[in-house]
Amino acid sequence: MLDHDARLDAVFRALSEPARRAIVLRLSRGSASVSELAEPLSMSLAAVVQHVQALEQSGLVTTHKTGRVRTCMLDPQAIGLAESWLSQRRLQWEGHFDRLGAVLAEDTNPASERKS
Amino acid sequence: MLDHDARLDAVFRALSEPARRAIVLRLSRGSASVSELAEPLSMSLAAVVQHVQALEQSGLVTTHKTGRVRTCMLDPQAIGLAESWLSQRRLQWEGHFDRLGAVLAEDTNPASERKS
Repeated sequence: MLDHDARLDAVFRALSEPARRAIVLRLSRGSASVSELAEPLSMSLAAVVQHVQALEQSGLVTTHKTGRVRTCMLDPQAIGLAESWLSQRRLQWEGHFDRLGAVLAEDTNPASERKS
Repeated sequence: MLDHDARLDAVFRALSEPARRAIVLRLSRGSASVSELAEPLSMSLAAVVQHVQALEQSGLVTTHKTGRVRTCMLDPQAIGLAESWLSQRRLQWEGHFDRLGAVLAEDTNPASERKS
């Protein structure tokens, strides 16, 4: 089991490749077999299998095999993990600028100038 | 100028490294010099400079130099780009499951059974 930081490493690394993002995009519309994933991508089935394995290791995708068909599903928890890390950074940044704005407004406020 | 896909590649790749995420986290609280960024990280200044350069190339960080001090700032647009890609995937996935749920509810509804 990967810890939180290692999971973020793996999720962000998995998403840094366009073919893997195309697979995640397809799976966000519903589960699909490896062959179905390969169809719109101009690459060999073996290459798609490798990308699916990388996505599986990152936790973004789970798979199960029935007979000869491997079905892939998106795990929204892994998406949520990365999304939440990013939204926290954005909110922190916005909060910082709100505070900075308040300080600047205070500094240019004639009332506060009179007090000093 | 990188296109949308290349920017996402670069942003996700930049965020797949814990030290770079630590730098982004620090900068989400306000701008900082390279030395200030290096302080809490147990690595050489040269290594921090390399991470800052990678973050700059990805568009997550902008820097400017005044005298000998390079100040780094977070660019929230790049954070928003990745955040928005992830939230779209999550919403698509949730939408898919809502539709699936509606179809299953329709199938098990006695009223619809009577009609068929």
